[in-house]
Amino acid sequence: MRQSDFFTKTSKIAPEGEEVINAKLLTRAGFIAKSSAGVYSLLPLGLRVLNRVNAVIREEMNAIGGEELLMPALIDKKYWEKSDRWKTEVVYRTGRGLEDGKAHDFEYGLGWTHEEVIASIARNFIQSYKDLPKAVYQIQTKFRAEVRSQGGLLRGREFVMKDLYSFHTDIADLNRYYDVAMKAYERIFKRLGLKTIVAEASGGAFTKEYTHEFQVINPAGEDTVHYCRTCGFAQNKEVFDATRHKNCRGTIEVARAIEVGNIFRLGTKFSEAFGLLYADEAGAKHPVVMGSYGIGPTRAMGAIVEEHHDERGILWPFTVAPFAAHLIYLSSPKPNVKTAADRAYASLQKVGVEVLYDDRKEASAGEKFADADLLGIPYRLVVSEKTVPKVEVKQRDAKDAKLMSDRELLKLVISNS
Amino acid sequence: MRQSDFFTKTSKIAPEGEEVINAKLLTRAGFIAKSSAGVYSLLPLGLRVLNRVNAVIREEMNAIGGEELLMPALIDKKYWEKSDRWKTEVVYRTGRGLEDGKAHDFEYGLGWTHEEVIASIARNFIQSYKDLPKAVYQIQTKFRAEVRSQGGLLRGREFVMKDLYSFHTDIADLNRYYDVAMKAYERIFKRLGLKTIVAEASGGAFTKEYTHEFQVINPAGEDTVHYCRTCGFAQNKEVFDATRHKNCRGTIEVARAIEVGNIFRLGTKFSEAFGLLYADEAGAKHPVVMGSYGIGPTRAMGAIVEEHHDERGILWPFTVAPFAAHLIYLSSPKPNVKTAADRAYASLQKVGVEVLYDDRKEASAGEKFADADLLGIPYRLVVSEKTVPKVEVKQRDAKDAKLMSDRELLKLVISNS
Repeated sequence: MRQSDFFTKTSKIAPEGEEVINAKLLTRAGFIAKSSAGVYSLLPLGLRVLNRVNAVIREEMNAIGGEELLMPALIDKKYWEKSDRWKTEVVYRTGRGLEDGKAHDFEYGLGWTHEEVIASIARNFIQSYKDLPKAVYQIQTKFRAEVRSQGGLLRGREFVMKDLYSFHTDIADLNRYYDVAMKAYERIFKRLGLKTIVAEASGGAFTKEYTHEFQVINPAGEDTVHYCRTCGFAQNKEVFDATRHKNCRGTIEVARAIEVGNIFRLGTKFSEAFGLLYADEAGAKHPVVMGSYGIGPTRAMGAIVEEHHDERGILWPFTVAPFAAHLIYLSSPKPNVKTAADRAYASLQKVGVEVLYDDRKEASAGEKFADADLLGIPYRLVVSEKTVPKVEVKQRDAKDAKLMSDRELLKLVISNS
Repeated sequence: MRQSDFFTKTSKIAPEGEEVINAKLLTRAGFIAKSSAGVYSLLPLGLRVLNRVNAVIREEMNAIGGEELLMPALIDKKYWEKSDRWKTEVVYRTGRGLEDGKAHDFEYGLGWTHEEVIASIARNFIQSYKDLPKAVYQIQTKFRAEVRSQGGLLRGREFVMKDLYSFHTDIADLNRYYDVAMKAYERIFKRLGLKTIVAEASGGAFTKEYTHEFQVINPAGEDTVHYCRTCGFAQNKEVFDATRHKNCRGTIEVARAIEVGNIFRLGTKFSEAFGLLYADEAGAKHPVVMGSYGIGPTRAMGAIVEEHHDERGILWPFTVAPFAAHLIYLSSPKPNVKTAADRAYASLQKVGVEVLYDDRKEASAGEKFADADLLGIPYRLVVSEKTVPKVEVKQRDAKDAKLMSDRELLKLVISNS
């Protein structure tokens, strides 16, 4: 992709009204645009990152037997009423002809979670113990009527969620799968460059049991976690109970954290509400045992920026970077410099490396380097009078640059992208 | 994918309350599940088709210089008020704490189109004639408060849209791009297996000029089109003016049609409302000239089913089929039959052919054949005692089957998928 064709441009000025790092950097670099509080557009660069985050999640969800589907955002009142969640505060309600604002006109709650819909769908396909276990997931846009929304991508009123739902004959099988999902989550966050701890938490509107949250210790987070580095014990502030940590001599630390994922043992709450029953070998009917497993891909994007940045900009991990390499041509009257840059661009593309090519004529070297640091693409490749016939290669997180031949460059970039 | 693992099952019974063919067949085959009127989930098979439709659209949009982004569904009231579309009937309005139904609580209109948001975003990146032309698009979920919604995927209250927006210095450049987009649309619908005619129509809430609709002549459609096969003249009923067809001796036919795409010359309505101006070479400022180009991928899915089915089920065109081949193992006590079926499955997968493998033990041959016809995957491959060591190959739309060796089979399926 040529930067001269790009829809977006970078900005030196931090956006008004944004307090957190991810919102500032992602906006300045042209990854996102705020539409209103807690509501963002993902611009082409941002959508590239989101697609890469989603690709990692899909791979790991498919690997644990998840089948992908897509449920709607408009969820009829009748679903929420069956599970007694119609009045939940975070639900945006809507319907036809609401201009007069009559309460009886509300027909839908915008989906902030999909237990109701999936339990209702599953009833068509799960009737026998032979149909179990099953797991389905979606990557879909969710809505939550948050009062406060100042965290950039960390707390949106509209955001992307991956939600997986699993179906089992009994608690033992749910527990088996719960561990499988937990390991998949650990792989996902590791691949995304996020160091997480697993904290016990309250099930909120979902379940009365402890649930587990994947937390990234980071000052931008809105959660508070109590945790012990020695034994791995961790609990969300709301459920923290010091007596549960009495057998370890480690100290409890308290820190702000970003919740990037959570897993819930739902039990039979929703299967009972929606009549999702299966027949055992003897023909006796039982409610299906369910689990629910969430990850916020857009929030993960925000968390990645909070974790991987410096004073000049973002440092995307390879796995989620919008491009593997940022090729910069420094304008020169000598035509062989442009030829060399074009050649490097062509040869990288030929081997399938995603390259952003800064071929802009007007921008100065200083502007181009500042943009490269702000955008945070892992490899910066410079072609100038000084480098020709070689290319200067610098990793975003490295101090030093190296001169490389085209062949050395290809070898390096391919092995890391 | 093994059918024995599948989340969904087929159903012999047409769903209650569905009148149109696409809703009946897609539900019975397990591609979609109705959540409420005009609101559907896309089950794993349905999502596969949608992804393939979207892939065709993305290819063609990228080919005409479109950069993909993703805008939100929650669009703040302030955007709609600027363009005077807050009161548009089809807008679902929502906000926080609406249970009491006070009109002043409405904060958002759910996006049914995104001219307002994109014009506002573009202001950050388009300032000069040098920044033009540009084109961006998204594939995103839209909402329309339709009074009547009985068309299955043809008229949803929630549906997927591809919307492209283009930005130009003047009408001449918009017209140039309008033709480019029209040709891209023709390629898209041809690839999707949809025969379209281009009809003039009213711009509705968008523009006072004629717009162009891509219409599939089909009795399930909700539009009425007047058209002439001789000269290609076509108009939507609402704008039909017989005097515009006076220079042709062909006859005007009137038929129901499904609108699968539309293109609009927006002119400067939205750029003026949102202050989207560019400076010309002399530094004088002008409003940017915009175009807008929509396709409904979910509606296109519905239209494909209306166009490609028989009394037994769907006939997916190769381009959008959820799988290229449906491999059916007919249970046999002889172990070499299962071995042969497994081998065919493995060898097709190895060369990258997407295969649905009906390895179910309990289902009868009759049930498996009926399911295959209902699902509509282009190639049906049968392995049974009678076929071993060969495979019986039948195209969904063909009467006769052929016995083929594994090698012949691979050659055939690869060349067509």
